[in-house]
Amino acid sequence: MAGSVLGEVFKISTWGESHGAGVGVVIDGCPAGIPLAEEDIQAFLNRRKPGETRYSTPRKEGDLVQILSGVFEGKTTGTPISLMVQNTSQRSKDYSDIAGYYRPGHADYTFDAKYGFRDYRGGGRSSGRETIGRVAAGAVANKILEELGIHIVAYTKQIGPFVCREDQIKPENIEKSPLKMPDLGISAEAEEYLSGKMKEMDSVGGIVECVISGMPAGVGEPVFGKLDAALAGNIFSVGAVKGVEIGAGFAVAEKTGSENNDNFYMASDGTVKKQTNFAGGILGGISDGDDIIIRAAFKPTPSIFQKQKTVNCQGEDIEIQIKGRHDPVIMPRAVVVIEAMAALTIVDRLFVGMTSRIERIKDFYDF
Amino acid sequence: MAGSVLGEVFKISTWGESHGAGVGVVIDGCPAGIPLAEEDIQAFLNRRKPGETRYSTPRKEGDLVQILSGVFEGKTTGTPISLMVQNTSQRSKDYSDIAGYYRPGHADYTFDAKYGFRDYRGGGRSSGRETIGRVAAGAVANKILEELGIHIVAYTKQIGPFVCREDQIKPENIEKSPLKMPDLGISAEAEEYLSGKMKEMDSVGGIVECVISGMPAGVGEPVFGKLDAALAGNIFSVGAVKGVEIGAGFAVAEKTGSENNDNFYMASDGTVKKQTNFAGGILGGISDGDDIIIRAAFKPTPSIFQKQKTVNCQGEDIEIQIKGRHDPVIMPRAVVVIEAMAALTIVDRLFVGMTSRIERIKDFYDF
Amino acid sequence: MAGSVLGEVFKISTWGESHGAGVGVVIDGCPAGIPLAEEDIQAFLNRRKPGETRYSTPRKEGDLVQILSGVFEGKTTGTPISLMVQNTSQRSKDYSDIAGYYRPGHADYTFDAKYGFRDYRGGGRSSGRETIGRVAAGAVANKILEELGIHIVAYTKQIGPFVCREDQIKPENIEKSPLKMPDLGISAEAEEYLSGKMKEMDSVGGIVECVISGMPAGVGEPVFGKLDAALAGNIFSVGAVKGVEIGAGFAVAEKTGSENNDNFYMASDGTVKKQTNFAGGILGGISDGDDIIIRAAFKPTPSIFQKQKTVNCQGEDIEIQIKGRHDPVIMPRAVVVIEAMAALTIVDRLFVGMTSRIERIKDFYDF
Amino acid sequence: MAGSVLGEVFKISTWGESHGAGVGVVIDGCPAGIPLAEEDIQAFLNRRKPGETRYSTPRKEGDLVQILSGVFEGKTTGTPISLMVQNTSQRSKDYSDIAGYYRPGHADYTFDAKYGFRDYRGGGRSSGRETIGRVAAGAVANKILEELGIHIVAYTKQIGPFVCREDQIKPENIEKSPLKMPDLGISAEAEEYLSGKMKEMDSVGGIVECVISGMPAGVGEPVFGKLDAALAGNIFSVGAVKGVEIGAGFAVAEKTGSENNDNFYMASDGTVKKQTNFAGGILGGISDGDDIIIRAAFKPTPSIFQKQKTVNCQGEDIEIQIKGRHDPVIMPRAVVVIEAMAALTIVDRLFVGMTSRIERIKDFYDF
Repeated sequence: MAGSVLGEVFKISTWGESHGAGVGVVIDGCPAGIPLAEEDIQAFLNRRKPGETRYSTPRKEGDLVQILSGVFEGKTTGTPISLMVQNTSQRSKDYSDIAGYYRPGHADYTFDAKYGFRDYRGGGRSSGRETIGRVAAGAVANKILEELGIHIVAYTKQIGPFVCREDQIKPENIEKSPLKMPDLGISAEAEEYLSGKMKEMDSVGGIVECVISGMPAGVGEPVFGKLDAALAGNIFSVGAVKGVEIGAGFAVAEKTGSENNDNFYMASDGTVKKQTNFAGGILGGISDGDDIIIRAAFKPTPSIFQKQKTVNCQGEDIEIQIKGRHDPVIMPRAVVVIEAMAALTIVDRLFVGMTSRIERIKDFYDF
Repeated sequence: MAGSVLGEVFKISTWGESHGAGVGVVIDGCPAGIPLAEEDIQAFLNRRKPGETRYSTPRKEGDLVQILSGVFEGKTTGTPISLMVQNTSQRSKDYSDIAGYYRPGHADYTFDAKYGFRDYRGGGRSSGRETIGRVAAGAVANKILEELGIHIVAYTKQIGPFVCREDQIKPENIEKSPLKMPDLGISAEAEEYLSGKMKEMDSVGGIVECVISGMPAGVGEPVFGKLDAALAGNIFSVGAVKGVEIGAGFAVAEKTGSENNDNFYMASDGTVKKQTNFAGGILGGISDGDDIIIRAAFKPTPSIFQKQKTVNCQGEDIEIQIKGRHDPVIMPRAVVVIEAMAALTIVDRLFVGMTSRIERIKDFYDF
Repeated sequence: MAGSVLGEVFKISTWGESHGAGVGVVIDGCPAGIPLAEEDIQAFLNRRKPGETRYSTPRKEGDLVQILSGVFEGKTTGTPISLMVQNTSQRSKDYSDIAGYYRPGHADYTFDAKYGFRDYRGGGRSSGRETIGRVAAGAVANKILEELGIHIVAYTKQIGPFVCREDQIKPENIEKSPLKMPDLGISAEAEEYLSGKMKEMDSVGGIVECVISGMPAGVGEPVFGKLDAALAGNIFSVGAVKGVEIGAGFAVAEKTGSENNDNFYMASDGTVKKQTNFAGGILGGISDGDDIIIRAAFKPTPSIFQKQKTVNCQGEDIEIQIKGRHDPVIMPRAVVVIEAMAALTIVDRLFVGMTSRIERIKDFYDF
Repeated sequence: MAGSVLGEVFKISTWGESHGAGVGVVIDGCPAGIPLAEEDIQAFLNRRKPGETRYSTPRKEGDLVQILSGVFEGKTTGTPISLMVQNTSQRSKDYSDIAGYYRPGHADYTFDAKYGFRDYRGGGRSSGRETIGRVAAGAVANKILEELGIHIVAYTKQIGPFVCREDQIKPENIEKSPLKMPDLGISAEAEEYLSGKMKEMDSVGGIVECVISGMPAGVGEPVFGKLDAALAGNIFSVGAVKGVEIGAGFAVAEKTGSENNDNFYMASDGTVKKQTNFAGGILGGISDGDDIIIRAAFKPTPSIFQKQKTVNCQGEDIEIQIKGRHDPVIMPRAVVVIEAMAALTIVDRLFVGMTSRIERIKDFYDF
């Protein structure tokens, strides 16, 4: 209950600090029979690895994952899957200062308020390295979704004032942009903007958008177990996220019902479809079969190299200048984290929803 | 797991349909010794009751709550508190049409996709009457927060393009506005706007803001159990919510780190404070002692009286015109629902957090 | 978390005190499409109703159940099912004494130690009336099991030294015995024994046995989620149970491996069977397709009419003589409670187990 | 939900197979500030290590534990504690036969029935090595209990027909007996009995007793969350356990109320005490301050070296003779596993119970 366990049926338990022995995750509730190799997971981890572009921390980590349990002869066995990444590039001395004061925008003060003290090296458990467990587990969830024909993709939608144009969002361009912005024209402009802010020893915020396609209709529970509530809550748990919206999102505030309702129609394949998708693929908390579209707002990295005012642990006002290795922008490395949270949520909700109809359960237990 | 149970320690289980015998909630995990009477709960229910202004459905419900268990000689006993409100004003015939088709923007289609059929009377379990259980449980949570000196207030921040001015938001004005907009000048303009849309048989969206004051620092768990993630997920579970943000929210996308960081300083009372509150009272998922400020975007009521295109259950394209009794705007009755969700979340997280330090546990179990 | 919520997927939340407005349960996680009427539940409640024989409390309660939600046109809808039984025969004055002292063998002292005070009327939440919620929910679970071809029956195996003979246990005799002992010869002897103890103002203990037949193999999770662990824990939660065993049970202590191992063989229908069933239908925590056989030991009713020594709330040694209406033997009314706990456990574990194989999940989500 | 996660507040997630890379556990919900070193855990692991006496498998494992996270400068930080033991002595070829058939008394058949296949090496996840995760986590729970003055001890009470005499049970003798029987006279007799059965290539069953002292009154929740129910369920989850009883246990079946009721009296220190402890320290599911006494019946090891009849995976009746390294008796190595399960349960229930009274919560959140 200390917060590092997620999921009701597909349950994960992440662990590890920035400057401890390593980071990892245990997955309990993965079905048997899914082909799984370390490369499947490594591919996802490589996308969040630091040091890949000039816009991310130069900390170099191999971030090599090991599967310690739950896989036999290349397939999941249905028992817990333990995944571990060892920490290798720890420069704890960069952080010796931090022990004594509270960095603005960070969790130093609140960890102290909660626990009485903290592992200050690199932010300890509140470090971005905590997301390795999420991404590794998300990679396994993605293998399940692959089997079911569900596909998830996330990208940087906006950096500062630069927003990808809807008609220019091409998934194949995401990896071509160092900022993971699929509108390459906008990406170039955003790079220039970001470079300027980096020179000013500042950081920038933005928005990540995530699209989940191939969803069946009928996933999600009414009331508190709504699919959008689960997605929103889980995505909100990623560090630096300050807002989450689905479909038309906050824009609904200025819309009328006649503008915002998505009319149903019969598609030529005999299925029920919507003319528009302002709902973002979820109605009444249950998937409607359309793409799920969700966005998360990321604050600018709080670790900036300018001088800042704050207080120390002795209760004195001081001025500090942060050192160390920090990303000036979070989104490019966060897109894979958002994909992971989406995958974890969808798998868990799919599994929770498997008992909605008695006739399906009867079919299931025919053994 | 079908979605109507909420909370890890302070656990509620809501039940009831729009046109069944009634609606209610069972609360398990309420501490013993809290003074509780039906009036405490009724006061909250009255604030969400229909038929109070011309901007809400004319359905008249007494919405009288009964305490069925868990209270003895005026105080909670620590055992489950069962609360029930009987339905009295059911005009099911208004809904006989709905059985046969899928209303745009509603959960009719997705319930059918999930369960194979649905209780179509008044939306069944996806009706707004479902929120009575939330509000009743929230009233009990509020009694706990009162004991701890924590105060929650919500109000309509925005309707269509009309946004309350920061310096005009006066809590004492909330109840003076039929729209629950504490900036009475803006409220009057919004009323005019809303009346215009009602004449066009249309509905409007908006934003509710919620402020939680009196919080101790140190509440919330790292990683998945973050306080903001819990608040966001739970508030997102309220029907018609399409986005949630905290503190500076989506505006962080266009801010830089130097603009967005809240600098700490020592207050004259010897406590650590922040110069600004862009964080919205939560850092790293843990409360920092400042006010928690959270906003939810509500879509316009999907039940509008204009003709709309949709499909029927036989898979034919049809045109419909919805009858019945519907609110043209959701926020005025939703503010108390948002307060309830905030109260339920804060109490649960306070309770979860009670094991963070061994020395506190030792003090606790001195009996 | 205060203890009245049970189940991971098929989740129930019971409420109510002996002398409050009523008792009830909310079931969340029941699949849609199951025929359900109040009579289905009433049949089970009638089996635990007081006042049916001379061996049960003369308190007369109709114990009539009402379905308040979750059923539409005679079938479950997949949303929460709220069930309520109103209390009608409350003679609280019988209990005014109890307020001031701690009855031996009862929870009076421990409730005070936990909560600081208690609802002393009829034992409040620790009363046997609490089991109405269990039985009502169990009746719904039984409807699900019926659909799947799983059958549960419990009976009194032993009272005092009188034990039913294996070859005389005939299910059709259970209801013929006022003590629910299917060996009618032994039942008659036990009645005589019990009558003797009643004259001495004493009470007697015994054992209930429960048989679950029609189980598929493969239900239950490894390690902590073992099917036998779940059954044992849930059955142990019934008041007055002091021991639970499965299959050969405590007798294994004196057996050797060669005596206790159940050899497998191929049955003529091509399935794997066991020559014996010392395991009690569960191997490694997972059902093996054989009958599950579980037994619970019940202590003698602690409410006896003899003089007893105890202490009062002022901390003085006193002598008391309990009044009121009390069963001199618990098992006859408890058999249906044990069946209910077994049914609730089996349904929950069946549902939890629905994600064990990816190929089954693929079949499931073909919509 | 696949079964390897335990606890509501003090939550553990175990992983690992007999012949995989290792075994381990992640603990989430441990308070900050508890001194913890690898030696604290190693001491417990050494007690379950194989190869220590002639009555345990000669498999030699160092079973050295590593703390991978959650500890900083010698104290727990409140964040997840990841513990790992690498497997070193794997002789998988011993098990190549097992792949093709189902051992009597083992989980081979049920794992296949559940998952469609299994990791057959050494029993995979159903191996006794799975208990390393339990014991490691239990060692951490024990550190918490030490701080609170609660002490847990378990020992072998019975092997075959040899039962320790009450007045000879001396805790200081437990480690002097290779069978962990504190009555050394009985232990010697049991050794002789066991040696005889080993010569016959057979195995023996028995009973472990566990005593929890120093408990405060008031721990445990009513109804489903009873402390005895939690202890029973969790202890039942240990492999080979076929029965659990508390206090007088199954003997209550032949007792009367006047014999079985524990009368209260005022002790000279002004506290409420019981004249006897047939209840086993728990009344109405809540601790009464007395010692908690619980017993578990263990079946004889199913791996015996005699010829046995069974079936193979092709559905043929066959005869087998098991090879490999197996304990002829489970209890001596299981006592520390039972202690671990007791410690994990008590800590979790203590933490769950911390919200039972509002005045205590007010004291707690004074920061």
